[in-house]
Amino acid sequence: MYRTTTCGELRLAHLGQTVTLAGWVQRIRKMGGMTFIDLRDRYGMTQLVFNQEVDADLCERANRLGREYVLQVTGKVEERSSKNSHMPTGDIEIIVSTLTILNEALTPPFTIEDETDGGDDIRMKYRYLDLRRNSVRANLELRHKMTIEVRQYLDAQGFLEVETPVLVNSTPEGARDFVVPSRMNPGQFYALPQSPQTLKQLLMVSGFDRYFQIVKCFRDEDLRADRQPEFTQIDCEMSFVDQEDILNMFEGMSRHLFKKIKGIDLPTLPRMTWHDAMKFYGSDKPDTRFDMKFVELMGILKGHGFSVFDEATYIGGICAKGAATYTRKQLDTLTDFVKRPQIGAKGLVYARVEADGSIKSSVDKFYTQEVLQQMKAAFNAEVGDLILILSGSDVNKTRKQLSELRLEMGSQLGLRDKNKYSCLWIVDFPMYEWSDEENRLMAMHHPFTSPKPEDIHLLDTAPASVRANAYDMVINGVEVGGGSIRIHDAKLQAKVFEILGFTPEEAQNKFGFLMNAFKYGAPPHGGLAYGLDRFVSLFVGLDSIRDCIAFPKNNQGRDVMLNAPGLIDQVQLDELGLKVVDKEK
Amino acid sequence: MYRTTTCGELRLAHLGQTVTLAGWVQRIRKMGGMTFIDLRDRYGMTQLVFNQEVDADLCERANRLGREYVLQVTGKVEERSSKNSHMPTGDIEIIVSTLTILNEALTPPFTIEDETDGGDDIRMKYRYLDLRRNSVRANLELRHKMTIEVRQYLDAQGFLEVETPVLVNSTPEGARDFVVPSRMNPGQFYALPQSPQTLKQLLMVSGFDRYFQIVKCFRDEDLRADRQPEFTQIDCEMSFVDQEDILNMFEGMSRHLFKKIKGIDLPTLPRMTWHDAMKFYGSDKPDTRFDMKFVELMGILKGHGFSVFDEATYIGGICAKGAATYTRKQLDTLTDFVKRPQIGAKGLVYARVEADGSIKSSVDKFYTQEVLQQMKAAFNAEVGDLILILSGSDVNKTRKQLSELRLEMGSQLGLRDKNKYSCLWIVDFPMYEWSDEENRLMAMHHPFTSPKPEDIHLLDTAPASVRANAYDMVINGVEVGGGSIRIHDAKLQAKVFEILGFTPEEAQNKFGFLMNAFKYGAPPHGGLAYGLDRFVSLFVGLDSIRDCIAFPKNNQGRDVMLNAPGLIDQVQLDELGLKVVDKEK
Repeated sequence: MYRTTTCGELRLAHLGQTVTLAGWVQRIRKMGGMTFIDLRDRYGMTQLVFNQEVDADLCERANRLGREYVLQVTGKVEERSSKNSHMPTGDIEIIVSTLTILNEALTPPFTIEDETDGGDDIRMKYRYLDLRRNSVRANLELRHKMTIEVRQYLDAQGFLEVETPVLVNSTPEGARDFVVPSRMNPGQFYALPQSPQTLKQLLMVSGFDRYFQIVKCFRDEDLRADRQPEFTQIDCEMSFVDQEDILNMFEGMSRHLFKKIKGIDLPTLPRMTWHDAMKFYGSDKPDTRFDMKFVELMGILKGHGFSVFDEATYIGGICAKGAATYTRKQLDTLTDFVKRPQIGAKGLVYARVEADGSIKSSVDKFYTQEVLQQMKAAFNAEVGDLILILSGSDVNKTRKQLSELRLEMGSQLGLRDKNKYSCLWIVDFPMYEWSDEENRLMAMHHPFTSPKPEDIHLLDTAPASVRANAYDMVINGVEVGGGSIRIHDAKLQAKVFEILGFTPEEAQNKFGFLMNAFKYGAPPHGGLAYGLDRFVSLFVGLDSIRDCIAFPKNNQGRDVMLNAPGLIDQVQLDELGLKVVDKEK
Repeated sequence: MYRTTTCGELRLAHLGQTVTLAGWVQRIRKMGGMTFIDLRDRYGMTQLVFNQEVDADLCERANRLGREYVLQVTGKVEERSSKNSHMPTGDIEIIVSTLTILNEALTPPFTIEDETDGGDDIRMKYRYLDLRRNSVRANLELRHKMTIEVRQYLDAQGFLEVETPVLVNSTPEGARDFVVPSRMNPGQFYALPQSPQTLKQLLMVSGFDRYFQIVKCFRDEDLRADRQPEFTQIDCEMSFVDQEDILNMFEGMSRHLFKKIKGIDLPTLPRMTWHDAMKFYGSDKPDTRFDMKFVELMGILKGHGFSVFDEATYIGGICAKGAATYTRKQLDTLTDFVKRPQIGAKGLVYARVEADGSIKSSVDKFYTQEVLQQMKAAFNAEVGDLILILSGSDVNKTRKQLSELRLEMGSQLGLRDKNKYSCLWIVDFPMYEWSDEENRLMAMHHPFTSPKPEDIHLLDTAPASVRANAYDMVINGVEVGGGSIRIHDAKLQAKVFEILGFTPEEAQNKFGFLMNAFKYGAPPHGGLAYGLDRFVSLFVGLDSIRDCIAFPKNNQGRDVMLNAPGLIDQVQLDELGLKVVDKEK
């Protein structure tokens, strides 16, 4: 060992001890005839002292050190004359007697501080230096702790972690697969799993009963801030259970994690139907840290001569408590916000509740105060509140726009505190959603999801209204997990495939290995998967999942540190029986 | 929940209780007016009873069930009249009152028993049925338990599990990479990691200090029984340590695993130099469950007119205790064994120690009894022992042949008990080994391995004799883990690359990202990696790693259950800018 103690553990109790530390030079300060060095390792920082008068040579050597040099020092623990209460080791310092330079260091291209001067690009290129920053390392420490706790909880509940293969077959789950050419099987390709969905169902057929895996999954999609080509799932499946059993089991897991990691006692999770989530929040992942539910206004505001509303299929609004102080300029900015192409609203109607209880709105000329008071009542609005209204010809699109406005107002009013958690289940998802692109019904979750038994009779007559035994866990407006009870009956599965537009042959071709397995005694089963990266980023309070991943990729799917992907040798292409061609051809 | 109890937990203490069970039909027996069904789940088996006289309808339904049907039954726990002491639940049975068929099952293509009638191929095709067998599931349960214990030990020692990416760059570590074409970066490829070697070294540069990961690794190699294209490593790295620290840390981990999983108190592990391992066992992974060390005989047997020995560069033998009873036929079979092309010896000389202490050998006509007695003394051979001798012109090759013979004799004499464990460290590996194929020195471990400080001066003059700070953990003749202290000094690294025949440009090109990282303050570091699959198979007592992997691939790298790899759509090939060409061209 190069050290007897870490840089984080020395206190007044250690005074007089001779210790050996190893770590990186955080900073060097010269004051009078003294040189002070903050030595950093994963565990903390300790002040080293060199005194010109005591050992001029040693002090001179210390003066020549640079930032991020790797040192080993031996010295005596002494009490500081001026203590630093911001550092756990701030009461002591080390009077260094021996200094060994374990390695020199070039000056890093950005500062290794919690708030660094490095931009995203340079931090990614030198990720190994970025990871030296306490704030980034702390995220990965929390991630480690979360996976330890997940395993502890699930192991105690009798779940077995089973590794499923990474080199699998292409499964039709919507997104694009990454593929891996097989040298031993020329012209053929493995696919990297988008999730172990079918394999975990096969494990249920095998009788494994309670399975989990913390596992890498892969999707070749165009990337956004919260998407990575490879991501990690906490993947779980259980047999001989219904939806209630699964919700309880994983509500328990979330409770365990909140308690162990954040010290928070999670209350019993509310459950909201998908239908209510859409109606009141315009989203299947509502941020319920704040209320501000939608109020529908068709009955009140339609038919009074305001053509925008009169022609609308949907009129709805939110009430922002205490925001009547918003200036004209602020309201214009909000209007611009909803009119941005990403949101796409045509305009924004607002109404303030004045000090005397009357309503002052941007559409006063179309509405009597009586109608406006009806609206006020519908919102339960009070003096000082601001009502914001959107309308449109497409119910779902308008709700989505209103949802964006609601989130924006939540942010502006400080209602989305990252240290506050609101966790709930969304249940009763529809089985199918219509795809304009494919001109057919698509599985909302995936084609193995079971319809609610009481809705099965609607499969033939009104498939779009059939509800699924599917559920999502939503925290602070983020879908952290989701799953479903699966179909275990071959006939029901065939029917569902038929509604999805597959011929029996196509179904057999695409899902044959699973359907065949089900013929040998499939138990009732279901499960869910959490996105670990998102779960960690929520616990950390990050907007992006990147900084809770050690080596993330950028929006072009590149690892700029490794310079991957890259070119490969012609020899290797030949071995694989592949030729790179111009994509334009 | 479909059950109140599992099929493994009912005992006499539960008599009279009404319980609900769910599981698979293991077997059905009719006796008189009674039908008995063994119901199986992951936790065990419970006998169900149906009585023709009590409920003829129910009994009739039970009679129509088939093997592997999935049932839910409710009934009362009663004491069996004829108990089965081989089953944990053998004291009780369930008098069934309600029977629900949860799913039907086709007759499985092989029996779901510990000893099945299914061959390898059919078991792999229907792996989900094979996994229903207790013996196979037990392996995966043990694997789960091992990873839980590994994490518990390492977490307690302050190690952080950090996930490294699966989509990386191609690294030159000897074996062939699997590659993944990038759609967003046409003509470019990711590689799947052969190990996270360089990434874990970067984490040390980042100050992570103590890292581990249980992680999938990939090698596109031709396959054998103990090789899979994807396999799992327990990958570890530490900073500010020397070899001694690492050996102690991971000896501790092995001790923890042996104690927790097998209930065995592992003694302090012996350490054997690579040189001694080769000299006494002809292998760098000696099976030390039994002694039978090599004895070199050049000094005794050369120069007596037996041309085979007189022309040999190496003569060595082993002494098989008590094997003098081997018949001529058994000795001929041994001779055939060493002459098989996989082993390649020219012949086998044997010598028995007779009841009177004299030696009777196959080369008696060349040697006086005096010389033969010298040989006997060299082996410490006793009455009843059998001495087996090989010779050859290539020391290493002959030692390898003798090693195979030693292992075979160990097996024949019952000295390789799978329930006995002999665990040791092999240390002081050479830095380099000569490659006839490449006509240059190659890194024996990998090019980042540090030479022993006391041998560094030999790098220029006698590189082949330089020893590395590299070590393997060997259990029962299997290399379960290995690693090294890494080079952290840029100049030493450059020298090592030079000896490996790289120009500075080539070195920069191949290893630049790591060498650059080292310029920013790399700490002294080292680590090791265990092969989890091998470790589990040793604990289970399997010869192949396959049955401790849920979904293994066959020798052609195929998953015959998933039918992977497979063809992909032209559309997808076009998106990737790839064309499949005939490999012959």
